[in-house]
Amino acid sequence: MKTRKFVLSEKEMPEHWYNITASMTNKPLPPLHPGTLQPIGPEALAPLFPMELIKQEVTSEKWVEIPDEVRDLYAIWRPTPLYRAYELEKVLDTPAKIYYKYEGVSPAGSHKPNTAIPQAYYNKQEGVKRITTETGAGQWGSALSFACQHFGIECEVYMVKVSYDSKPYRKLMMNTWGAKVHSSPTNHTQAGRSILDMDPNSPGSLGIAISEAIERAASDEHTKYALGSVLNHVLLHQTIVGQEAVKQMEMAGDMPDIVVAPFGGGSNFAGISFPFLRLNLEEGKHIRCIAAEPASCPKLTRGVFRYDFGDTVGMTPLLPMYTLGHNFVPAPIHAGGLRYHGAGVIVSQLLKDKLIEARSHDQLECFQAGVLFAKAEGIIPAPEASHAIATVIQEAIAAKISGESKTILFNLCGHGHFDMQSYEDYFANKLVKHEVTAEDIADSLSKLTTPEIA
Amino acid sequence: MKTRKFVLSEKEMPEHWYNITASMTNKPLPPLHPGTLQPIGPEALAPLFPMELIKQEVTSEKWVEIPDEVRDLYAIWRPTPLYRAYELEKVLDTPAKIYYKYEGVSPAGSHKPNTAIPQAYYNKQEGVKRITTETGAGQWGSALSFACQHFGIECEVYMVKVSYDSKPYRKLMMNTWGAKVHSSPTNHTQAGRSILDMDPNSPGSLGIAISEAIERAASDEHTKYALGSVLNHVLLHQTIVGQEAVKQMEMAGDMPDIVVAPFGGGSNFAGISFPFLRLNLEEGKHIRCIAAEPASCPKLTRGVFRYDFGDTVGMTPLLPMYTLGHNFVPAPIHAGGLRYHGAGVIVSQLLKDKLIEARSHDQLECFQAGVLFAKAEGIIPAPEASHAIATVIQEAIAAKISGESKTILFNLCGHGHFDMQSYEDYFANKLVKHEVTAEDIADSLSKLTTPEIA
Repeated sequence: MKTRKFVLSEKEMPEHWYNITASMTNKPLPPLHPGTLQPIGPEALAPLFPMELIKQEVTSEKWVEIPDEVRDLYAIWRPTPLYRAYELEKVLDTPAKIYYKYEGVSPAGSHKPNTAIPQAYYNKQEGVKRITTETGAGQWGSALSFACQHFGIECEVYMVKVSYDSKPYRKLMMNTWGAKVHSSPTNHTQAGRSILDMDPNSPGSLGIAISEAIERAASDEHTKYALGSVLNHVLLHQTIVGQEAVKQMEMAGDMPDIVVAPFGGGSNFAGISFPFLRLNLEEGKHIRCIAAEPASCPKLTRGVFRYDFGDTVGMTPLLPMYTLGHNFVPAPIHAGGLRYHGAGVIVSQLLKDKLIEARSHDQLECFQAGVLFAKAEGIIPAPEASHAIATVIQEAIAAKISGESKTILFNLCGHGHFDMQSYEDYFANKLVKHEVTAEDIADSLSKLTTPEIA
Repeated sequence: MKTRKFVLSEKEMPEHWYNITASMTNKPLPPLHPGTLQPIGPEALAPLFPMELIKQEVTSEKWVEIPDEVRDLYAIWRPTPLYRAYELEKVLDTPAKIYYKYEGVSPAGSHKPNTAIPQAYYNKQEGVKRITTETGAGQWGSALSFACQHFGIECEVYMVKVSYDSKPYRKLMMNTWGAKVHSSPTNHTQAGRSILDMDPNSPGSLGIAISEAIERAASDEHTKYALGSVLNHVLLHQTIVGQEAVKQMEMAGDMPDIVVAPFGGGSNFAGISFPFLRLNLEEGKHIRCIAAEPASCPKLTRGVFRYDFGDTVGMTPLLPMYTLGHNFVPAPIHAGGLRYHGAGVIVSQLLKDKLIEARSHDQLECFQAGVLFAKAEGIIPAPEASHAIATVIQEAIAAKISGESKTILFNLCGHGHFDMQSYEDYFANKLVKHEVTAEDIADSLSKLTTPEIA
């Protein structure tokens, strides 16, 4: 009988996270202070993050040990299974061998707890009483609620109003794990009040929610802030995904030619691809790593590489990133986790150096891919995950045309159980393409006054 | 580091289902023809079920081989993990060791695909083109949709109208897997039309939906019917759960003193408990097996053991069962999977012979237990599963009081991702106790004209 799943025991769980910057020839450029335009040091982040996470943000060590307490909690759902997608291969009639790593087995239903658990852990170590964060689609807010619950830390989530209203079950999931969830903008913060003054019916945005969460953390010494993607330490934590996958591909007696993951801020993609990229950087392998982003928010494929703010209102340091401009407003696609204007610093440098690839997909193509996958393999994917599936299908068809038997691995980062409304909209033909025009992008970029990169 | 999950490889998946009737001294009484009151033979079931399933329904063999094709599809999610619930133990401050088998990892989110896959397989073997079924909460309809999709069989689900209206995402899940879902009563069947004639706004019931599904199957030679619990072959298929659990408890170097499962028609409970009961029946062990049922539908704890119909409108053979009467209408609790008036034949005989125990819980106690579990262990349980958790908590507290270190195992049969509305209602204090009065039960039973059992 063929093997569908490659499963590791808890004892085989990796003991270190992998820091790819140690293997990169061109290191990422430093973040800049928006006033002085000088590189900022770790101390600038101290009001928002515990020191151990700041150390991880700037570390040059290649391997960062995962604390036993974190590995113990990872064991609630990790190691996650790696599947051979026999049924999808059959439907696509492709000579390609397709594998996927399934992160939807976590209690929150996605890869996000991989960083929520260590972030909550380090905050707890340093006596933090409360963590604030923002959430759009709700995956990250759920994960942090779950993690904080375990460590007895209060969790306060600023959830973008449109999501708060349209995704009541995600909110309820956070409540079940004991988190307070606010519909953002609120009137608890200066940032929120200033928005509501201008527009009492504001639908909110991720940028506003970030501002509210940061303001709240900065104004209380017992409160810190947590981010679910983009930053180096977040990407670092996610590398447990790819490290497990390397072992599991070895169990399968195979090695990918192509690794694919959805792309929002970068942690999903980094998580699965960096441990394979290490084999390229250090052992001369040639594994193609492809980031799959939405056509409605195409920072990697159509953005520019320059300094920009990480948030919409300009409260963060300037980061060297592929960006559409921090004022870019992506269309309201259902893959809320991918609606972010920029790409994390490390991933941006890798793309600049042509060490990774990027591709964009329209949401209709993604839902078509997601339904095809659900029918074949059973698991109903989150809309974010369907972006990777769309890329995989293209590559599998290319393999069929060329007659080559490629091995493709992708990150099935989460299930779609809390996204069924989006499937309903898709089946009811309510979804439209959201292509961005060249004018939209040029317009957004023309407003940037942040430093360009030579 | 302690081990949280005990995981089997696909190669270690059991190769046989276990038929407990082969180990029972008192065999279950035969089903009777409602007209003649004579035992019916297997041929009476031929219009509804494929012959291989009918053979399994009446087999006296102890071990029934699982076809390779079925084991191959089981491998999409099986073997499922067995967890040690360290966090729950900590919260309860109990000397008891608590383990749970987690069936929510299946694509449909519950244990139901364990029988949906083989039922679809045997139907396919015999050339069946379409399968009809009913569904209440939607777990069974989802599982069968998923299974039929794999075998290219059309699936037609009659979903109780109140569920159809209140659980749109369950319906959508079935649609995603290609099933047709009807809001029952429909006007496609005689049974449905007769109900609508009397009450055009009928909210439907499981009994009506069963009648519609059976009528449709009986009137078309290419169409068969499938049931998700109660029948012997369904219980048989679920024993893979307990057989894996026996192996996993051995891996953990432990053996349960108590095994607990939710009880609707019996397949959930049978699945995990029968392989442990085998150790009692054949090897002189004394493992207590407890069925946890809703206080609003207490057939095991407050029903009578007599012949009754399996459906509400009286289309099935008479079955020897613990029953509240086939006209009993359970309160609209959220654990829709447990709202069934009777208990399967095998389980009823075991209870009659005091080889198993039963206990009932009010829904408020169950939600309290479910939220406690979700906070401790992360996984949000289905309302059905919370009934088992309520029993486990009672036993864990009893162990604390007596100071004994009991080992408790329960079946966490599914996640609650499609039941978040019920959690919302619970948090909003919208749920009430639904105790059944002695008068209600006496009234329902007084209407029975079916044969009593000496």
